[in-house]
Amino acid sequence: MTTSTPDTHPPEVIHFAARTSIEQVEEGHDLAPKFDQDGLIACVTTDATSGEVLMLGYMNRDALEKTIQTGEAHYWSRSRQVLWHKGATSGLVQRVVEIRIDDDQDAVWLRVSLSAGTYAAPASCHVGYRSCFYRTIELQTGKIGYAENAKTFDPKQVYGDAPNPTIL
Amino acid sequence: MTTSTPDTHPPEVIHFAARTSIEQVEEGHDLAPKFDQDGLIACVTTDATSGEVLMLGYMNRDALEKTIQTGEAHYWSRSRQVLWHKGATSGLVQRVVEIRIDDDQDAVWLRVSLSAGTYAAPASCHVGYRSCFYRTIELQTGKIGYAENAKTFDPKQVYGDAPNPTIL
Repeated sequence: MTTSTPDTHPPEVIHFAARTSIEQVEEGHDLAPKFDQDGLIACVTTDATSGEVLMLGYMNRDALEKTIQTGEAHYWSRSRQVLWHKGATSGLVQRVVEIRIDDDQDAVWLRVSLSAGTYAAPASCHVGYRSCFYRTIELQTGKIGYAENAKTFDPKQVYGDAPNPTIL
Repeated sequence: MTTSTPDTHPPEVIHFAARTSIEQVEEGHDLAPKFDQDGLIACVTTDATSGEVLMLGYMNRDALEKTIQTGEAHYWSRSRQVLWHKGATSGLVQRVVEIRIDDDQDAVWLRVSLSAGTYAAPASCHVGYRSCFYRTIELQTGKIGYAENAKTFDPKQVYGDAPNPTIL
């Protein structure tokens, strides 16, 4: 039997408005996000201090609501098909400094501050780099280069034998 | 009859590799982008100077290739279903400073410098704001606020009667 702790500050219910006109969506004060055919909205996450893009993820309604309510980034993991509280495994929690939404409300921008994990310096990428965007594509040639010289943590130590989320 | 101008510097053909292993995709030197079921890859575009996120768009193979070859941002317009050389109508061209690609190669990050158009200060958003992300979502409550106080240009003057790309 579990003991429930009374929650003296229940989270506010987040109201997602129906999308009724271009003016309402683009220039209004209604939060009226557009979820795609899979029920997802794209989310770009940047480091609030450096401005570096850390990752591009996806949220379903639940993930967006929980991110707003808790101030910690939640995503929908497309590879694992679960709600994903970023940092639940790794300790690399993303604390939200600001949330923005775009003109047609089909994309969200999170500005976050990164936490360090038990075995890891502040970082965001499951491969071990600070940002998921650790590689460059050279203009004109398309050649791949590396923007980060070294990993910030050892993914084996942080994730153990958890399956790699990359899908070919 | 049109006169063709000989191109003394034909663009390099950009080679997109087949995706053969997680190691190749995440830690290799092959450009092996993953296009989704609609043939698209997500692209986040930031101002190379301020770090501000300007927009989140999508590219097909052709748009990604042309962006690499020309150093100017090209997208696939999902609303108009055409290759979209950003700035072709508005003059608000995005000159690419750096291209990055993420761990599983299903997202691209463009760092760009903005051009001013004939009728517009440097900006990126069809509604008239500098960034498409001109609105905030308040933590805990989900209330919408404005991060930009005023538009940087009059979209009527720049786009005339062109159809609004926002889809409800």
